[in-house]
Amino acid sequence: MIPTSALKTLHLADEGKLVLLVLDGLGGLPHPDTGLTELESARTPNLDLLAREGIVGLSEPVGPGITPGSGPGHLALFGYDPIAGNIGRGALSALGIGLDLAPEDIGVRLNFCTIDSDGNVTDRRAGRIPTDLNRELVADLSSIEIDGVEIELATESQHRAVLVLRGAGLHPAVRETDPQQTGVPPLAPDALAPEAAATEAILQRFLAGVREVIGDRSPANFVLMRGYAGLPALESLEEIYGVKSACVAAYPMYKGLATIAGMDILDTGDTFPGEVAALQRHWDDYDFFFFHFKDTDSLGEDGNFDGKVAAIEEVDAAIPEIVGLGPAALAVTGDHSTPARLHQHSWHPVPFLLHAGHAVPDAATAFGERACGTGSLGIFPARNTMSLLVGYAGRLKKFGA
Amino acid sequence: MIPTSALKTLHLADEGKLVLLVLDGLGGLPHPDTGLTELESARTPNLDLLAREGIVGLSEPVGPGITPGSGPGHLALFGYDPIAGNIGRGALSALGIGLDLAPEDIGVRLNFCTIDSDGNVTDRRAGRIPTDLNRELVADLSSIEIDGVEIELATESQHRAVLVLRGAGLHPAVRETDPQQTGVPPLAPDALAPEAAATEAILQRFLAGVREVIGDRSPANFVLMRGYAGLPALESLEEIYGVKSACVAAYPMYKGLATIAGMDILDTGDTFPGEVAALQRHWDDYDFFFFHFKDTDSLGEDGNFDGKVAAIEEVDAAIPEIVGLGPAALAVTGDHSTPARLHQHSWHPVPFLLHAGHAVPDAATAFGERACGTGSLGIFPARNTMSLLVGYAGRLKKFGA
Repeated sequence: MIPTSALKTLHLADEGKLVLLVLDGLGGLPHPDTGLTELESARTPNLDLLAREGIVGLSEPVGPGITPGSGPGHLALFGYDPIAGNIGRGALSALGIGLDLAPEDIGVRLNFCTIDSDGNVTDRRAGRIPTDLNRELVADLSSIEIDGVEIELATESQHRAVLVLRGAGLHPAVRETDPQQTGVPPLAPDALAPEAAATEAILQRFLAGVREVIGDRSPANFVLMRGYAGLPALESLEEIYGVKSACVAAYPMYKGLATIAGMDILDTGDTFPGEVAALQRHWDDYDFFFFHFKDTDSLGEDGNFDGKVAAIEEVDAAIPEIVGLGPAALAVTGDHSTPARLHQHSWHPVPFLLHAGHAVPDAATAFGERACGTGSLGIFPARNTMSLLVGYAGRLKKFGA
Repeated sequence: MIPTSALKTLHLADEGKLVLLVLDGLGGLPHPDTGLTELESARTPNLDLLAREGIVGLSEPVGPGITPGSGPGHLALFGYDPIAGNIGRGALSALGIGLDLAPEDIGVRLNFCTIDSDGNVTDRRAGRIPTDLNRELVADLSSIEIDGVEIELATESQHRAVLVLRGAGLHPAVRETDPQQTGVPPLAPDALAPEAAATEAILQRFLAGVREVIGDRSPANFVLMRGYAGLPALESLEEIYGVKSACVAAYPMYKGLATIAGMDILDTGDTFPGEVAALQRHWDDYDFFFFHFKDTDSLGEDGNFDGKVAAIEEVDAAIPEIVGLGPAALAVTGDHSTPARLHQHSWHPVPFLLHAGHAVPDAATAFGERACGTGSLGIFPARNTMSLLVGYAGRLKKFGA
């Protein structure tokens, strides 16, 4: 893609709406019985029509052979460098449970743990305590107050929680305290750079507070801290591509990722039909819509091949409603692959289709891994997605005379 | 592509001639009646034979979704970074009308305008005066003399003219004077960097001269200045690729672009047969020939689908003469797409074919957008064109032991 500084000089048209429809974890692997992937197995007449009329290819979110997390997968689709803009675990966990996080804040992943009377860790996960107990502990720990910094705590699940620090002069270069073994004490949150001295002091005071509040509980009587991270401060999609942008996502993490790109977050409720309704309701208000569909990933991680097929078919059935709104350019893809056979994110490039008025349709007649592998977009970095969308929508001026 | 510094160590053979045949604006869009693009509609038995015997792909001049101007489109085909080497409007206008421009010179786009007695702009284009009046004004303004700098003025068309400054110590970081609105005075050509102070003074004196010479004319009694630009100083194709290179182009702008790459400019006359004759006449004198064909772009910009088809067929008919000369490698492509349907340059990747003795022919049996979309070259940056040509001609040594 061309440098951001050049892209910013090319804004031409204010018309022509863009939709980026992300089926999370879309890419899959062939079912051993049929030789067809989830997407190839699904009955997708509407997506197939878009593939026939449009152009297809394979999108590579981070790099060849690299399995993307949700953060880099989405940052790449939004046109950012997914490596330079990588988001640390604490910040991503905070986004995942819907906490507000400004670029100057720091998110920290907490694991409740068990320490013995000598202060040595005996269980790094406190026996994977029930989530309800986690909630009680978090409520109690929320009484901790430290001058000059605002503290927010939230339960993730089981032994996992998140701490957010908000204040001036915070810095994430602090040692993680998980010793990665039992029978030894937690490490100290030492500043690893001079700028992090104040943050070290805050974390020390927080740990003293933890000891005071839950030190006599069992089995969870302390916390281990890792993944200190803020959010990258990125230029917005509006600044770079000249598009007023909105996020249509039912899950907190994707809303959080969208805020990094400067999107407004639309109220969707929890369901896919609610997302479609939000898109329709706000169609006139924005230029660019990031539309996120979660189930394909969740079902892939569950190893539920047929469920993932059904989820793809659910999206396919809604395609006429989306196309009916008249986007100038519509991309359908995933942020990474999640083959049911692997039960997890994978490194496989992701099926990608681009539907726009001014395209030279390629030979692909269906939307699937193999059809996309023969498409005229070839295999390309996911980072190109945004410039393809604004380009095919006719929103960019000529570069150079 | 590999870095220039490495390419320069790989020169091996002095034999094996290369031809880069550029059909300007080659790429197109399907005709609504037939579903075929201009290139797909054209009867091109000779180009189709080359596609069958050679390899094809889609060339992306500047980046995905980006519409290239003629400058970046050609710089990329010549192997240069089309963004870093982007040529400003004043310099490109100077090249376009055939003015000499050295890398230390500055070209400026002038628009004749109308100002009222208070000095406010009343018409930024002076009513789009006829080109003949422009010529008269330019002739009169050519009397302006400024110490220490050579001034050349030339008519472009209607209200558009070009000023070239030649001298030591010029710098283009000067404010453009077009206020982009009427009812206000032109802006001053203020230096935007300390190095441009002398250039500001020269331009102030030039504007004083303009006032003196044409200040009492009507409707064109002043000029607005923009697009101050020199040419990038680039290493020549001979330095980088070890090829003595020549330009076969009938239009001034392309000759100008070729001089930036260090090409000799052959005398072609104004016609395509004249270009073919020049290629034949100088075949023994050079290693690399950039052969430019203009009509495909002009007809595309006119929206003349059938005319563009006929122009492609005209080139096809001459292919046996070019192939008959025995190039070791021949590339046929465009510097960008100009679909007749859009009447302008577009962002679509450009059909590309490479014909060489040592190629593994791919499955493509015709030269067209869709055939190229399935080719073994895939979709690739136009910047790779030069190294593909010298590589397939067998002119490069092994890299590394």
